[in-house]
Amino acid sequence: MSSEQIRVTVWNEFRHEKTNATCKSIYPNGMHEAIASYVRSVSGCQARTATLDEPEHGLTQDVLDQTDVLTWWGHVAHSEVSDEIVDRVQERVLAGMGLIVLHSGHMSKVFRRLMGTSCMLRWREADERERMWVVKPSHPIARGVGPFIDLPMTEMYGEHFDVPDPDELVFVSWFEGGEVFRSGAAWTRGLGKIFYFSPGHEVYPIYHNAEVLRVIGNAVRWAAFSGNDTVKPFYGANCEPLETLSVKDYQRESIDHAAARENL
Amino acid sequence: MSSEQIRVTVWNEFRHEKTNATCKSIYPNGMHEAIASYVRSVSGCQARTATLDEPEHGLTQDVLDQTDVLTWWGHVAHSEVSDEIVDRVQERVLAGMGLIVLHSGHMSKVFRRLMGTSCMLRWREADERERMWVVKPSHPIARGVGPFIDLPMTEMYGEHFDVPDPDELVFVSWFEGGEVFRSGAAWTRGLGKIFYFSPGHEVYPIYHNAEVLRVIGNAVRWAAFSGNDTVKPFYGANCEPLETLSVKDYQRESIDHAAARENL
Amino acid sequence: MSSEQIRVTVWNEFRHEKTNATCKSIYPNGMHEAIASYVRSVSGCQARTATLDEPEHGLTQDVLDQTDVLTWWGHVAHSEVSDEIVDRVQERVLAGMGLIVLHSGHMSKVFRRLMGTSCMLRWREADERERMWVVKPSHPIARGVGPFIDLPMTEMYGEHFDVPDPDELVFVSWFEGGEVFRSGAAWTRGLGKIFYFSPGHEVYPIYHNAEVLRVIGNAVRWAAFSGNDTVKPFYGANCEPLETLSVKDYQRESIDHAAARENL
Amino acid sequence: MSSEQIRVTVWNEFRHEKTNATCKSIYPNGMHEAIASYVRSVSGCQARTATLDEPEHGLTQDVLDQTDVLTWWGHVAHSEVSDEIVDRVQERVLAGMGLIVLHSGHMSKVFRRLMGTSCMLRWREADERERMWVVKPSHPIARGVGPFIDLPMTEMYGEHFDVPDPDELVFVSWFEGGEVFRSGAAWTRGLGKIFYFSPGHEVYPIYHNAEVLRVIGNAVRWAAFSGNDTVKPFYGANCEPLETLSVKDYQRESIDHAAARENL
Repeated sequence: MSSEQIRVTVWNEFRHEKTNATCKSIYPNGMHEAIASYVRSVSGCQARTATLDEPEHGLTQDVLDQTDVLTWWGHVAHSEVSDEIVDRVQERVLAGMGLIVLHSGHMSKVFRRLMGTSCMLRWREADERERMWVVKPSHPIARGVGPFIDLPMTEMYGEHFDVPDPDELVFVSWFEGGEVFRSGAAWTRGLGKIFYFSPGHEVYPIYHNAEVLRVIGNAVRWAAFSGNDTVKPFYGANCEPLETLSVKDYQRESIDHAAARENL
Repeated sequence: MSSEQIRVTVWNEFRHEKTNATCKSIYPNGMHEAIASYVRSVSGCQARTATLDEPEHGLTQDVLDQTDVLTWWGHVAHSEVSDEIVDRVQERVLAGMGLIVLHSGHMSKVFRRLMGTSCMLRWREADERERMWVVKPSHPIARGVGPFIDLPMTEMYGEHFDVPDPDELVFVSWFEGGEVFRSGAAWTRGLGKIFYFSPGHEVYPIYHNAEVLRVIGNAVRWAAFSGNDTVKPFYGANCEPLETLSVKDYQRESIDHAAARENL
Repeated sequence: MSSEQIRVTVWNEFRHEKTNATCKSIYPNGMHEAIASYVRSVSGCQARTATLDEPEHGLTQDVLDQTDVLTWWGHVAHSEVSDEIVDRVQERVLAGMGLIVLHSGHMSKVFRRLMGTSCMLRWREADERERMWVVKPSHPIARGVGPFIDLPMTEMYGEHFDVPDPDELVFVSWFEGGEVFRSGAAWTRGLGKIFYFSPGHEVYPIYHNAEVLRVIGNAVRWAAFSGNDTVKPFYGANCEPLETLSVKDYQRESIDHAAARENL
Repeated sequence: MSSEQIRVTVWNEFRHEKTNATCKSIYPNGMHEAIASYVRSVSGCQARTATLDEPEHGLTQDVLDQTDVLTWWGHVAHSEVSDEIVDRVQERVLAGMGLIVLHSGHMSKVFRRLMGTSCMLRWREADERERMWVVKPSHPIARGVGPFIDLPMTEMYGEHFDVPDPDELVFVSWFEGGEVFRSGAAWTRGLGKIFYFSPGHEVYPIYHNAEVLRVIGNAVRWAAFSGNDTVKPFYGANCEPLETLSVKDYQRESIDHAAARENL
C-alpha cells in the first residue's frame, strides 16, 4: 500500500436512509457512517466516506488517488452513477486499489464492469434466517469468526449468481427458504483485489453485527495493495528484445517481413 | 448446443487484407475465409463469416441467435465496432454462445467488456520464434498437437498480460527475445465459454498452420454450449421460498419488517 | 479416449448390500449394478463392474488399462483396499483415466491420495431433504437437469469439506438441518479428470433417481480422456536444449560448472 | 499465526554440501544456513534449521508444533525421508502450517503427498539463463522485485510440470534453451498454504541472490497461518441439526429409515 495506514473510502448511495423510516432508524447517519466507524476502529486503517449526491459522487480523482480500498453500497440508484466515475474507479482498481462490494452493490455499474457478467441473482425479502458457512478457512478474510456466521433475519440472495467463477470462495450461505448462495467471493482484476460480501439489506441492522463488521475489516486489510507495482509501466509497451534475435538486422518499425520470411 | 451442427460465425475486421500487400498475398480472401474454410472441414461444424464493414458488422441479432460459437479477429479498427453490437455479443455470450478471441482481438471491445480489465500486454514485431507449450494436457483444446507448437516467425506477445486469472491455462509461450506469454487461456462468463488464443499476426501465414488450425477447431468444439440452460429463466427473479418460513405471515412486497424484527 | 466407446468400470465395496436389509431391498444386485445398468444405457458408453472382495479388488492392471472412466463407491471397508491397488489406480488417473468418486468414497484411500488432504466433512443421518443447486450452469456435468436437484431424503454432508479448492464447482447443496456442501466438484490430476458427487447413502434409493443418474452419466462422458497424450513421454526427462545455448561447449553430464560460472 | 513472530524451520537434505566441492564452496554451512540467515533478517520472522541426518530428520512433533512455516530443500535422498515424518508434516500443513518447497523439493515425498501427482518435469543442467516473469503482480509474493527476475545461470526446469493446476500462478520462467516453466505457484491444502519456488540448484549461488531471497521472505510471510482455526474441530464430526427437521422423531443412530421413507 502507498502509505503506512490503509486509507479506506466508504461509498454509499445514501438514499434509503432519507426515505425509509426503518432504514433511517437503524442507520441515522447512513450505512456509510456505520461501516466507516467500524473501519476506523481497525488497527492500521483510516476511513472517509463518499456518497452519490456529492459532486462527482464524492469520488474525485484526488480522493481515489488517495484511496487504498473502496467499499461500495448501492441499490435503487445504480443508474445514476455516471459512466465517467465508473471508468475512474475501474482504472484505479486495475492500478491496485482494493474494492469491497457489499450486498445490492452486486448490480452496481462498477461491479458489473469489473466482472463482465450480468451479476444477477434470485432474491426474496422475507425476514428469513441466513447461515454463512466458511468454506475456505485458510483465507484471512474468514479470520476471527466461527465456522459460520448466523444472521437471524436477512434478505435472501440465491443461486444462480451470474459472476465469473471466483478466484477464491470464502463463504457459502444457507437460507431458511431453501436456497444457497456464494456469499463471500474474491477476484483479482489488474493489480486490484475485489471481494464481494452479500449481507446488508437496508432494513436490517446487519452493519451493526460484530461478525459481519469483522469480515469487512478483514477484507479491507486483505484488499489493500501488497503486490508488485513495477509491472505497471509495461502495460501496452512495444519493447526491445531481451535476447539477441537470430534475425540479425531486426529494426523496429522498419522490418522487411517478406525478406525475413525467406529465411524460414 | 441448439442444433446438431455447431454453427460457427468467423468475424474479421478485414482491413489489413485490403491495404497491406503482404497480408493480402497470404490471405487473398481475408483471414476469415482461411479460418472458416478450416472450420468447415471439422466434423460437426459449419461456418459463415462476418466483417466489420457489413451492416451491423455482419452481426445482426438474427445471425447471433443462430451462432453457437463466434471467433473474433480485430486490430486497427477496434474503436469502429459499435457499442450496440458489443452489448449484443456480450448478451449472447452470457446466454451460452462460445467465443474464441484471436491474437490482436485481445484489445477488442468485446473481449475487454467480458474480462473487465485492460487486456494490455507487451509486444514486438521482429520475425522471431515462438514455442507454445502445453501446460494442461488433460484439456480437449490441446488435443492432437505435440507437447509444444513451434512457430518459426511470429509477433511477440509478452507478460504481463492484464487479464483475470484464467479458469484454465492451456498454453504458455516462449519467445526468442526472452519473454513468456499465457497464450492459450479459458474463462467462463455466464453460460458462455471463452478461449483466447494468441497466434495470428496478419503478416505471417499463421492461419495456414495445421497445428494452429487444429487448436482453433478444438476450441470451437469445446466452446459450443453443452451445459444447463434451465438456469437462465431464474436470472434476476424475485422468488417464492421453497421451504416453509418461520415468519408465518410472509407475503411478498407487503412484509412488515419492523414487526417481524421484534421476533428476533 | 482410446476406443470409440467409453469403457466404464463401476467399482463398489459391496458390503452393506450383504448385511443391511434396507440396502439389500433397494439394491438387490448391489449399487454397482444399479449404476452400471444406467451407464450402459448412455449413448457411447459400456460398463463392467468390480468389487472389493474379488481378487485384486477386481482392478487388475489389465482391467484398469482397459478402463476409460472408473467410478468408486466405498464406506465401511476403506482400510481393506490394498495400497498396491491404490498405487495402480493413481497411476492410471495420472495417465488419463477419469475417476468419479461417489458419496462416502470421499474417505477412500484413492480419493485422499489424489487430493492430498483429509477429505473429512460433517455428516448426519436423519432422513432430511437436500437440494443440490447448479452453480456453474455452463458445465456439461450439469446438463439435462433443472436449476436444482431435489432429494427428499438423504444423509447430510456438510462443510467444511477438507478438499483442495475445486478447479470447477458445479453443485452446492442445501440441507434441511441448516448446512451447505460443495456436492459436485471437479479437479484435474495429471492427464486425468476427477469428479466428486456426494449423493448416495446406501439406505436411500439415490441411484434409482433419474437426475442423479443423469449427472453420473454426464460426468462419465466429461471424465473420459480427450486431451493431449503426447505430453506423457516427457515426464521426468533430462533433455537436450531446443535452442543454441550461449555456453558453447555444453555437454550433458560433463559440464564444468566452475569454469562456466566465470563467464557470469 | 500462533505467536507474534513467524517461526520458520528451514529444512535441508544437507548432502551435496558434504560431497560436492562446488556446492560446499558456495554454501560452506549448507543451503539451510544461507536461507535461515536471510529469514532471520526479515522483519517479524525467526528461523531454526533441521536436516535429514538429525534424529527424526530434525522434525520432531515438538519442532513442528512450534513451526509456523517450513521450507524444504531435498534432492538425492528423497527416499530416505521416513514415511512417519511425511505423515507428520502433512498433518501439520492441513492444520495450518505453511510450506515453501524449493527447487528439487518438487520430487520430495512431502510435496508429492500434498499434490497427489507425480510432480515430475523436464530438466537440463547446462548453465543457462532463466528469466522469471511475474504473471500475477497483485500477489504479495511478487512484492519488491521487478517485472522479472534474471538468473544468469541455472538448471532448466521445463513443462510439462505434473502438478495440480495452481490456485495462484505467480511466476513463469523463460529458459535460454527454449522451455517455459510455472516456477512460482501456490496451493491451499486444509488450513495450510503451500508455495513452490523453482530456483535453487546446488551448484549455483542462487540462495545468495537478493531477489530470490526476497521472494522466499515474501512467501514465508504469506504462508504463515492467518485464517480461521475454529473450523478444525468440525473435521469428521457427526453433528446435530441446526434447524428443526420435518422428520419429527429424528434420533441419531436409532432412526428407522424404512418407516421414515414412507413419509416421502
